[in-house]
Amino acid sequence: MSYASQEPEALIAEMGARARAAAGLLAQAPTTRKSAALHLAAAAVRGTAPDILAANQADLQRARAAGLSTAMLDRLELNPSRLAAVADALDEIAALEDPVGQIIDRRTRPNGLVLERVRVPLGVVGIIYESRPNVTADAGALAMMSGNAVILRGGSEARDSNRAIHAALVAGLTAAGLPEDSIQLVPISDRAAVGAMLRAAGVIDIIVPRGGKSLVARVQEEARVPVLAHLDGIVHLYIDAAADPAKARDIAVNAKLRRTGVCGATETLLIDRRFADPAAILAALADAGCTLRGGDEVRAIEPRAEPASDEDWDTEYLDAICSVAFVDGVAEAMDHIARHGSHHTDAIVTEDAATAEAFLAQVDSAIVMWNASTQFADGGEFGLGAEIGISTGRLHARGPVALEGLTTYKWLVRGTGQTRP
Amino acid sequence: MSYASQEPEALIAEMGARARAAAGLLAQAPTTRKSAALHLAAAAVRGTAPDILAANQADLQRARAAGLSTAMLDRLELNPSRLAAVADALDEIAALEDPVGQIIDRRTRPNGLVLERVRVPLGVVGIIYESRPNVTADAGALAMMSGNAVILRGGSEARDSNRAIHAALVAGLTAAGLPEDSIQLVPISDRAAVGAMLRAAGVIDIIVPRGGKSLVARVQEEARVPVLAHLDGIVHLYIDAAADPAKARDIAVNAKLRRTGVCGATETLLIDRRFADPAAILAALADAGCTLRGGDEVRAIEPRAEPASDEDWDTEYLDAICSVAFVDGVAEAMDHIARHGSHHTDAIVTEDAATAEAFLAQVDSAIVMWNASTQFADGGEFGLGAEIGISTGRLHARGPVALEGLTTYKWLVRGTGQTRP
Repeated sequence: MSYASQEPEALIAEMGARARAAAGLLAQAPTTRKSAALHLAAAAVRGTAPDILAANQADLQRARAAGLSTAMLDRLELNPSRLAAVADALDEIAALEDPVGQIIDRRTRPNGLVLERVRVPLGVVGIIYESRPNVTADAGALAMMSGNAVILRGGSEARDSNRAIHAALVAGLTAAGLPEDSIQLVPISDRAAVGAMLRAAGVIDIIVPRGGKSLVARVQEEARVPVLAHLDGIVHLYIDAAADPAKARDIAVNAKLRRTGVCGATETLLIDRRFADPAAILAALADAGCTLRGGDEVRAIEPRAEPASDEDWDTEYLDAICSVAFVDGVAEAMDHIARHGSHHTDAIVTEDAATAEAFLAQVDSAIVMWNASTQFADGGEFGLGAEIGISTGRLHARGPVALEGLTTYKWLVRGTGQTRP
Repeated sequence: MSYASQEPEALIAEMGARARAAAGLLAQAPTTRKSAALHLAAAAVRGTAPDILAANQADLQRARAAGLSTAMLDRLELNPSRLAAVADALDEIAALEDPVGQIIDRRTRPNGLVLERVRVPLGVVGIIYESRPNVTADAGALAMMSGNAVILRGGSEARDSNRAIHAALVAGLTAAGLPEDSIQLVPISDRAAVGAMLRAAGVIDIIVPRGGKSLVARVQEEARVPVLAHLDGIVHLYIDAAADPAKARDIAVNAKLRRTGVCGATETLLIDRRFADPAAILAALADAGCTLRGGDEVRAIEPRAEPASDEDWDTEYLDAICSVAFVDGVAEAMDHIARHGSHHTDAIVTEDAATAEAFLAQVDSAIVMWNASTQFADGGEFGLGAEIGISTGRLHARGPVALEGLTTYKWLVRGTGQTRP
């Protein structure tokens, strides 16, 4: 079938109809069959590694010719060890607990009706992502393993890599006896396809955007399909007066600098004025190459710090930069977080359990941590086995989203002839 | 404060800011205090019954002068017994189990981190509804009891009744020491206020529309805030070959005719051609005053039936009208439901458990029933104590939505100084 000549709306409608048909079969598919498809897909990735790497080289050549940045090229690049990790991830997703069919609750009514809420797949999931080709495998596998048909729309720069990886996924589906339309890849790379997906209400049940700010902003503006959005991670680490200085230093350095480009990386450090040793923390960060930004109070303690502007408090640096502010106690820290946070992840370091519990209860973020690095904000670290994103929205799923977040439920009512009075 | 002269956007922004502040307090409020506020509000409704009934008379007079239909006037009308029911409902909601603070799951990671998912309120809930003034009390109470601040926008025809009931709710909140901004009523009645609410992303966390098709269509088109939508209830009842004829007849008459205006009322009856006694069911419906619509096969059995048009299969009558079709077995019935249903409620009558389980598993609706009247599709009948609506969407909450559906969760991570390798 030649999709590439179709208008984007017609293309998405047709892919959506095929996805819906596949979703009906996938929703009833046993766990073992879905797992088998992913193990077979992993084998196909390993078996066709030379083809996938060659396709990736073609993408990289085009990207270099187009003058993409080194960071973009790095995200796009596959090599034997990265590709082995793609295959391993498929095997790991195949081993995850299947939420489909789980009974959430059951009750018997006085009239004898037996009610159950049972997890079922969402249906047709659309995933829009950018340059990393591993998302084709990860996201496709997570959606399929949770019983959904998925329509993948990757970045045009990764076109050939995505096609090669997608072929391996389809090989796995077919070998396991599941419909190949369970995981479809949008075959055209113009941006109109994204718009058509965002408007496809009733055709696509949920859109998961995985990308930078411009993608997310476009999705928020245009989508008529519900979105599981992953917005900014303006992550705060608050060092309380009662923090253990060594723990506070180790957590701060790890939270900020372990990897600076991940959404769980700390961006703003808040320090209680009564905390014993702020200088050691600021020095440790600066020594490790972190640019600090703060007010006079901060720069008096750590001369390497630069002045902070108003914008700094609302900025997700995703870089070795950290804004630092002193506060008077946990209440002022929570107030700062309420004004500047993005409801992603925020953490407190303290040995005072009452202060910690107040922070845990009152900070309105998807993830709130006590005495742990914010870099743990990750589906794998949470034991979910994987993640399709970290939801900063309040509806449906919040925080790391894996298989369960890609399901909904239905109510089953079993009676013996009851009529309602 | 005089809101009424403000532009709708500024008004909603200001009400939203007050709601957000109230939500912060409500999220931490103990169950006993929220319950007390509702019991006190119930007492205030009873204590100010003459005022509320007088306000309702003013609304009714305006509505009669404006030529509203008898059905509209009936929905608008309060009388002493209906008002007593409003107060009783507040007492009942006060006694519901509070989902806030419930621990959904807990896990300890190999590195010692302890993870909990804990239910928390959604935040600020907007409810847009039409003429029934009891919704002011019901919806306001459900949202507040689940820890949310709520902005209510009732129909202009019920303006005075809503204000009087709202005053009783505020009296309860104040007497219990909760912020009066926990339940706010939009003080202007022009339709621009609805648009301002629908666009208030970040100010209002979720909109619950409770009204007819035109409201829901507008909400679906305009909303930038997530919506918990209650769409059509094109409800099917399938009588299988293996149905018990007496049960089938009783369920069919109840499912169609107990109340025809509710969303759980059956609209289409599907009958297996091998079922023993279709004539008795069709006669019972026609005898009870139901207009039947079907093809030649139906009219050959029940001469009072009218011809059905193509539209009938996609119509929610909400009236004593029933479309009827014969099918060859459960697979054809499920295919009809997949093409014409609205994913609300669908039911099978059969004594064959395997057929029933196939229907329960494969019909993709919020509620799927076996040997029970579709009129049981109701939060109260499901033991939820109440309902703010029946969600036909797939995200967040599905089917009857009560307190739990008005909450989300957050992840709490408790550590002892862990950093991520």
